[in-house]
Amino acid sequence: MTDQKTIAKLAIPNTTKIALLVMDGLGGLPLEPGGLTELETARTPNLDALARDGICGLHDPIGRSITPGSGPSHLALFGYDPVRHLTGRGVLEALGIGFDLQSGDMAARGNFCTVDSDGLITDRRAGRIPTEKGAELVKLLRSIELPDVKVFVELVKNYRFVLVLRGHGLSGPLTGTDPQKLGVAPSPVEALGADAARAASLFNQWIAAARELLADLQPANMVALRGLDKKPNLSSMSEIYGLRAAAIATYPMYRGAARVVGMDVLPAGESLEEGIETLAIHWADYDFFFVHVKKTDSAGEDGDFDRKVSVIEHADQVVVPAIVALHPDVLVVTGDHSTPALLRSHSWHPVPVLLHSRHCRSDEAQAFSEKECSKGALGRLPATEIMPLAMANALRLTKYSA
Amino acid sequence: MTDQKTIAKLAIPNTTKIALLVMDGLGGLPLEPGGLTELETARTPNLDALARDGICGLHDPIGRSITPGSGPSHLALFGYDPVRHLTGRGVLEALGIGFDLQSGDMAARGNFCTVDSDGLITDRRAGRIPTEKGAELVKLLRSIELPDVKVFVELVKNYRFVLVLRGHGLSGPLTGTDPQKLGVAPSPVEALGADAARAASLFNQWIAAARELLADLQPANMVALRGLDKKPNLSSMSEIYGLRAAAIATYPMYRGAARVVGMDVLPAGESLEEGIETLAIHWADYDFFFVHVKKTDSAGEDGDFDRKVSVIEHADQVVVPAIVALHPDVLVVTGDHSTPALLRSHSWHPVPVLLHSRHCRSDEAQAFSEKECSKGALGRLPATEIMPLAMANALRLTKYSA
Repeated sequence: MTDQKTIAKLAIPNTTKIALLVMDGLGGLPLEPGGLTELETARTPNLDALARDGICGLHDPIGRSITPGSGPSHLALFGYDPVRHLTGRGVLEALGIGFDLQSGDMAARGNFCTVDSDGLITDRRAGRIPTEKGAELVKLLRSIELPDVKVFVELVKNYRFVLVLRGHGLSGPLTGTDPQKLGVAPSPVEALGADAARAASLFNQWIAAARELLADLQPANMVALRGLDKKPNLSSMSEIYGLRAAAIATYPMYRGAARVVGMDVLPAGESLEEGIETLAIHWADYDFFFVHVKKTDSAGEDGDFDRKVSVIEHADQVVVPAIVALHPDVLVVTGDHSTPALLRSHSWHPVPVLLHSRHCRSDEAQAFSEKECSKGALGRLPATEIMPLAMANALRLTKYSA
Repeated sequence: MTDQKTIAKLAIPNTTKIALLVMDGLGGLPLEPGGLTELETARTPNLDALARDGICGLHDPIGRSITPGSGPSHLALFGYDPVRHLTGRGVLEALGIGFDLQSGDMAARGNFCTVDSDGLITDRRAGRIPTEKGAELVKLLRSIELPDVKVFVELVKNYRFVLVLRGHGLSGPLTGTDPQKLGVAPSPVEALGADAARAASLFNQWIAAARELLADLQPANMVALRGLDKKPNLSSMSEIYGLRAAAIATYPMYRGAARVVGMDVLPAGESLEEGIETLAIHWADYDFFFVHVKKTDSAGEDGDFDRKVSVIEHADQVVVPAIVALHPDVLVVTGDHSTPALLRSHSWHPVPVLLHSRHCRSDEAQAFSEKECSKGALGRLPATEIMPLAMANALRLTKYSA
């Protein structure tokens, strides 16, 4: 019903502004049955006020039972079908570090890792080598050449890098080489489609050369690749919604997800405080702002319930009032998925969402929490419906037929 | 989004166990407007405790307005699209009585019936002849031979039998011959597709021969066939979910539905008590158990409100504690459809469902009933979403993309 083609046809210009605040991995679980979740535990007077005045619900990023990766869940929040437009992490990371990925390029996310004398992985992150060491190794790997393609190696941070192959006729889908566990060797890249054989062979040649170059070093004596993919050709948010869109996100992957849909990526600094300063400075320049808070997710992944509570409270105290003070016409607050500290990982649980605008109906939800949002009048909705709803509330969608 | 292919790709091994308790035709209606349903009337302290600690909702077996047959509604509960995988009752009954139905076989469910001298049906069940009489007649019908196909006739019980044709190139879809009312003659089998003409002709030849053999007998002097179909090629629950799955069901159709999706069918005995004994004995051998309670539906079909209440209370007292005592990681309790005593038939009303696990969020539902489940955080969901949710809660689905 609300597919992007329809939305694109209905989109009309307006001067209204939309802000989307995403607290990564926001949804949670109680540590003990019957207890409170992270969000229910946190003192969040500003979010609660927005929930009281706004309309609330629970969204499914991909599907009711699906534990989402952050790439697809962000695409869904931006209104793009996350299954049809599944995009490899290599592409998101490459775009995220500002690499000028071109149409036809294939990108992979790389890790330096440690292997023993039998080639079995003993540390997937090579002791989390410092960024200076990573930069040095990336320089070494740049000496690798491949027939008929250009090769780019760019450091992301620490042990993480991006590998890009540029040339004609490169195609996926390809498997990654990171087995994501210890005690086994990295797998070779495999072609999953008939057209993918050449790209697979080139990636494997590069890996063989990298192994040779790194063999006598410690602890980073091998590489593992994942998320090998081509840049997708998505219509931009400007094309679909007619919005000048900007992202404020500190982590490369989220900056990459924003770039994939054509957002400008603004300098976010390192802290939430710097991020909202950027927001205020650029408020006049854009119609849509995506503000990303990463550390809710990191705390959940670490199983640190209390730290996740603190991050939520910090966002409530610092980020929410700063956005509200700019008087967006529509403010959406949500997460990209749940990351309960109990599970120490992303999970399938639906995610609280609130939408605040002059034109939303109010509902029974009296605070911003999993339980209150489950009473909200937005009900249970797919994440892809959130952007169209924000557009409608911003009076940026015209009538469907006469 | 949560199609079976996606679920199959995400399924990972674990040692967790899932139990699915289906009370057939569970959903109901009050006898008087404003009154209580069968489930709301029943004293169900064990189910209520599960509902309080677990997460509840209402499911639609096929669609919001569709009154489901038991075959499709069970396939939906097992996670199979009930429309795409519509399976004739002949197949379910044949598999249900343990007949070794092979790929390409066509099966029909048969009734002995009574017709008058004009060939019009006067009793659709031939006075519910006893099983011994049915067996005798089946023996007689086994003498019928058809060109180029093997013919199997197997008694189910009383007046019910299964007819199977085996040979090359048999194909449906075919119409049944049972008009399901009195005073009319059985219809001929009709081919609904271009490839179905030969099968239709063979079934009609068989019926003509059966009519001749039975003509002078009373009360079973004719047959009526329905649910004529070919065995579908469904991926098994083991292939899709990686689950070793077992069924405990006393009625052939439900055993058949379980066999269609590759479950082992365990000896269920005749009573709920015998069924749960089987469950305990085989608890270590399987990852997934489907436990079926039939008599809720039979009472509803008979219009017997009080008996349906009693069957629900019996299941609450006997079956629920026995399953809980085995500590399944995920316990789902629901029905396959509603069978309100008021309507004396299956109905379109959504069905209460509860899911209990260590990883579900709790919600507002304080008891297991239509009204409380409508407040539950599972909300309103298609039946096909239940198995994926059980898999997620059993930590048997990995993350979708990075």
